[in-house]
Amino acid sequence: MSDWWQQASKSICQLSRQSAIARQRQLTKPAGSLGLLEQIAIDFAGWQQREIPQLDNIQICVFAADHGVVEEGVSAFSQVVTGEMVKNFASGGAAISVIAKQVGANFSVVNMGLVVSLGDVTDVIDCSVASGTNNFTKAAAMDSHQMANAMQAGAEQIDDKAQLFVGGEMGIGNSTSAAAIVSAVLGLATDQTVGKGTGVDNVGLAKKRAVITRALDLHREQLVTPAGILSCLGGFEIAALVGAYIRCAQMGIPMLIDGYISSAAALLACQLNADVRSWMLFAHRSQEPGHQYVLAELKATPLLDLQLRLGEGSGAGLALPLVEMALALHESMATFEQAEVSNR
Amino acid sequence: MSDWWQQASKSICQLSRQSAIARQRQLTKPAGSLGLLEQIAIDFAGWQQREIPQLDNIQICVFAADHGVVEEGVSAFSQVVTGEMVKNFASGGAAISVIAKQVGANFSVVNMGLVVSLGDVTDVIDCSVASGTNNFTKAAAMDSHQMANAMQAGAEQIDDKAQLFVGGEMGIGNSTSAAAIVSAVLGLATDQTVGKGTGVDNVGLAKKRAVITRALDLHREQLVTPAGILSCLGGFEIAALVGAYIRCAQMGIPMLIDGYISSAAALLACQLNADVRSWMLFAHRSQEPGHQYVLAELKATPLLDLQLRLGEGSGAGLALPLVEMALALHESMATFEQAEVSNR
Repeated sequence: MSDWWQQASKSICQLSRQSAIARQRQLTKPAGSLGLLEQIAIDFAGWQQREIPQLDNIQICVFAADHGVVEEGVSAFSQVVTGEMVKNFASGGAAISVIAKQVGANFSVVNMGLVVSLGDVTDVIDCSVASGTNNFTKAAAMDSHQMANAMQAGAEQIDDKAQLFVGGEMGIGNSTSAAAIVSAVLGLATDQTVGKGTGVDNVGLAKKRAVITRALDLHREQLVTPAGILSCLGGFEIAALVGAYIRCAQMGIPMLIDGYISSAAALLACQLNADVRSWMLFAHRSQEPGHQYVLAELKATPLLDLQLRLGEGSGAGLALPLVEMALALHESMATFEQAEVSNR
Repeated sequence: MSDWWQQASKSICQLSRQSAIARQRQLTKPAGSLGLLEQIAIDFAGWQQREIPQLDNIQICVFAADHGVVEEGVSAFSQVVTGEMVKNFASGGAAISVIAKQVGANFSVVNMGLVVSLGDVTDVIDCSVASGTNNFTKAAAMDSHQMANAMQAGAEQIDDKAQLFVGGEMGIGNSTSAAAIVSAVLGLATDQTVGKGTGVDNVGLAKKRAVITRALDLHREQLVTPAGILSCLGGFEIAALVGAYIRCAQMGIPMLIDGYISSAAALLACQLNADVRSWMLFAHRSQEPGHQYVLAELKATPLLDLQLRLGEGSGAGLALPLVEMALALHESMATFEQAEVSNR
């Protein structure tokens, strides 16, 4: 019996894509002059199976979890910050909270496995798998049951009314996990995949690389399948993103992928189930040096390059107005015939 | 007596900039992790002379005019399209019209000199200087009175309540004018500055380059001052943008510069009055190959690179939500102290 995450994605309507392409050619502008925005409108037409797609319901869901590898000194911030930031998400003070409000998206925060108790904090969905992952320089980050639980919890967050899904993540240490995953999947050395994350100095950067190199060596025999890579090197929030992305594609909900950590999850999702890729848009090019390799592997052209390195889903949130603009232009621009403008 | 456009720009408040920089360091994110958006908030603080700037009033003004050089066969579209598109702007069917509505900006269209009569079209401001410029391969595009009138008309459009100005342009043939201006100002060969505009083929591209080379040769002795370059090679809509940009800086209204044609106007504005530059943001990197040289000369880092080549102010319009997001994040994110999040 195959796992749920291997089941097929929803199919894309090629006829609606063709109609949208034809419509773009009739709008009062030189053909192709709206660049990537034309492609977004065409993609949405195929996803929504109609020539003129709509976008009224955007879901942003942030998954948070702690990482055992933080005890190796790989982050500029203390591990307590993960839980503190979860409260900040819920109370509206974090970047992604402000962005979600600004764009009118439905916003939720999910505890996938913090080391601290959240006490009486409300507005955080509790799907905690464990109090953080294991230190992956000593053992697999999670076992296969934990991985399946985290993926399932991610998948269950998807709102079937959503027309676009943005996943976010928070977890002190998770740029170390993401870099390890990218090195393992793409066979890249750690000097290509490891960056400064939230801002370690050069000593911290060297430590981060050494830690990942040790982990890649320790788990070598398990790093031959995407599931092995995810369980040995992942985080619960990354596994939740993997599950959420795959379920989105199965439900027919396109997703806008954020930065390095989210893209590492997207890479694993596509490794587990290749046609998930056709439901993905990519929001931005992160300052993390390893992101470019993931984008290249996934043949992704991101919308923004704003020197961002925050995570949380913030880069995807910032790209949402461009997606909305692409659909507004596709719907509301006049055709040459309607406007009585001479085509070439 | 000096011309109005040589008078000083409004000064920028360095104290407010410093306060905004300090505030950015206190917000709950790794320092610098919001990249270019942090810089936008800091710039606005200096412009508005307050730590937490606001953006409630955005003005978008599109200037349209015809170009005599079109008779040399430099455009993929017929000259009647300029007037047809002006009607399309006014009736809401053009890209910039849709974008202006989407962002809630104040939108206006100005006839700076069309070859056609607009008949009974309302909602277009009439500042027509002449029925298109002269063919600049045979004479100066405009005389110095026409240039001064066009600059003045552009300046007079600025709304003193605007907190951000976006200038747009429409004029079949104006990528030829812009390329000629950029070649003249920066001393670049036409194979560096001339692109396909709205979409000429390779034959058209060669013709466009040859036409500009002839014009640069014909006007050589006049192309030694920015005013000489503007009058010999410009368009009325480009002169209006130059005037509008300079007046904005004098009034203390920042501006978001669109693509190649707008940037050629911005380049001339800065040549005429250097401190205008400090009131400019740049929206996007155009597909026109010459744009990169203008951006480099002006030390500009544009916000978007979406393979756009439409003009009208559309690229700037598309970047407006990012500016709004930058200010919303600056204002509404919690500080480390407010959110009780541990700083590093």
